[in-house]
Amino acid sequence: MSRAGPRLPRVIEASHGTGGKMTHDLIEAIFLPAFRNPRLEPLLDGAVLEIGGMRLAMTTDSYVVQPIRFPGGSIGDLAVNGTVNDLLMGGATPLALSAAFILSEGLEIGLLQDVVRDMARAAERAQVEIVTGDTKVAGAGDREGLFITTAGVGLVPAGIDWSPTRIRPGDVVLLSGSVGDHGASVMASRFGIALDTDIPSDTCALRDAVLAVRDIPGVRCLRDPTRGGLATTFAELSAQSGLTLTADERRIPVREDVRGLCEVLGLDPLYVASEGRLVAVLAREDAEEALRRLRAVPETRDAVAIGEVTDDRPGHANLRTLLGAIRPLDLLPVEQLPRIC
Amino acid sequence: MSRAGPRLPRVIEASHGTGGKMTHDLIEAIFLPAFRNPRLEPLLDGAVLEIGGMRLAMTTDSYVVQPIRFPGGSIGDLAVNGTVNDLLMGGATPLALSAAFILSEGLEIGLLQDVVRDMARAAERAQVEIVTGDTKVAGAGDREGLFITTAGVGLVPAGIDWSPTRIRPGDVVLLSGSVGDHGASVMASRFGIALDTDIPSDTCALRDAVLAVRDIPGVRCLRDPTRGGLATTFAELSAQSGLTLTADERRIPVREDVRGLCEVLGLDPLYVASEGRLVAVLAREDAEEALRRLRAVPETRDAVAIGEVTDDRPGHANLRTLLGAIRPLDLLPVEQLPRIC
Repeated sequence: MSRAGPRLPRVIEASHGTGGKMTHDLIEAIFLPAFRNPRLEPLLDGAVLEIGGMRLAMTTDSYVVQPIRFPGGSIGDLAVNGTVNDLLMGGATPLALSAAFILSEGLEIGLLQDVVRDMARAAERAQVEIVTGDTKVAGAGDREGLFITTAGVGLVPAGIDWSPTRIRPGDVVLLSGSVGDHGASVMASRFGIALDTDIPSDTCALRDAVLAVRDIPGVRCLRDPTRGGLATTFAELSAQSGLTLTADERRIPVREDVRGLCEVLGLDPLYVASEGRLVAVLAREDAEEALRRLRAVPETRDAVAIGEVTDDRPGHANLRTLLGAIRPLDLLPVEQLPRIC
Repeated sequence: MSRAGPRLPRVIEASHGTGGKMTHDLIEAIFLPAFRNPRLEPLLDGAVLEIGGMRLAMTTDSYVVQPIRFPGGSIGDLAVNGTVNDLLMGGATPLALSAAFILSEGLEIGLLQDVVRDMARAAERAQVEIVTGDTKVAGAGDREGLFITTAGVGLVPAGIDWSPTRIRPGDVVLLSGSVGDHGASVMASRFGIALDTDIPSDTCALRDAVLAVRDIPGVRCLRDPTRGGLATTFAELSAQSGLTLTADERRIPVREDVRGLCEVLGLDPLYVASEGRLVAVLAREDAEEALRRLRAVPETRDAVAIGEVTDDRPGHANLRTLLGAIRPLDLLPVEQLPRIC
């Protein structure tokens, strides 16, 4: 339709929610023109407001994962850890969260209670308080109908100004652990795929890890590779920096069971969401120190260097494959896996 | 079930979302025990955080109204105005909003675009920026499937410390205009009730009105009578103050068409939501000045005194009826009208 621009279909499709190219098109065609302001523009996972000499970070995410519970966590863990991590990725120390619940008629109250307890436990671990909330009822008949939207605020300390625009050729990319565990865990649960052992979601708050490296001066920016997975993070950081991030497939940890499940389902694990992993871009001379500090924190003990930054294909990411070939790493054009977070 | 306490049913019902007694029971049985902290405890529409000598207000609401558009506005207007008003009711000057969208597959993108434009226009009028957001896709097949969750932050200036605990016997209750317009507007739209003329929703941001009276020292607290309407606001303020707020039915403005629609549907307009009205409790000696200032602001030009505070039935509200009788004004035990905001 003409108003929405030629790239948009007439109605919303599942792929609009996967964090890939269709999500980006939707944001650029609908949200950015309407809400245009300097804080929204960078399209990062949060905004920073200058208030009375302080820098307040603000972020929000809705969670619609199905099923609500999966090995290693629930929608409640995601809703807390995801928003806490978005604050941390912006350089902020998380302070407080809001939590808004949209419940379906028919949702089992015992299930809601379990999820709320998961949220309380996750908030305690992440050292944030859930300070305000809302409850609405909508829809009908779904015993697992539960959406949670959290928003978070935090303070960015003086001297921290992370941004992909600070990435430079020669920088190094670190990854804190195996990719795709969360997405694989949800998929196995959703499709009832029998495995020898469950794949646990990697959902966790990255507070200790981020605070451990925050004062390293060469840190350019951090990201958590959630929707769209590691590949999408590489594509986004390349576009936002105008440089080329190249990931080395041989160095990217993928669990054997995650790899096996992805093969069965025909998915690329590099596009499968993690919910507790960290991608850090930083100056080469600080990489060893950052790895040392990350490996001392339980949540990021498997941190490795997986990539580097060049300027040979400005704005686009590359993958160096297992065989040593270089191929483009782009935003996924269509849905790989909806409702993963 | 035993874990959730004896007052809770096994599954979520529509009445859990109407802001009445079942919503309160759910919050008290599930959310408060899990998230207990001093900021959440007062059960107000927002929290206030002390940060570096400043007081930051934070609030959130999800919007699930059906239909998405109604005379005088849309879910987009509500999502901005409702969260802006919650900040204002806490004494804060609104600064910024986040907006998280949960879209159904099949939602018409043109409709989404209209709603987003309504949000942008409402934000401009309310002088807040929408600084960050999120988009998820869930569910299927609903061309009007759109939920919006906004969170807001604002600053509470020094000296403003509004709370129902500050209400005193002898105080006066003001109301800024007719009640139930929003709820009646949505009902007429939802049920396709043909009226001579549309009932416009009263949705608006109360920024100018609140800022006009904020420096009056006798102001105890403000509320917007949204879910559950004016009666629920009176019941809540009575419970939270431990006093008795009595509303005088003869002085409560109700539009003739709203009254007529409520009669047809068997509803009490005192329990029907407004989305742009203000209830103010303040010292008697400041009431005339507050009325004068409110009447000078377009959104609150019909402000009147409708009630008073006593201590004869501690924690419970009264209604003085059209015939002069006194009857209790309690939280509504069951659903009157779901999905109104």
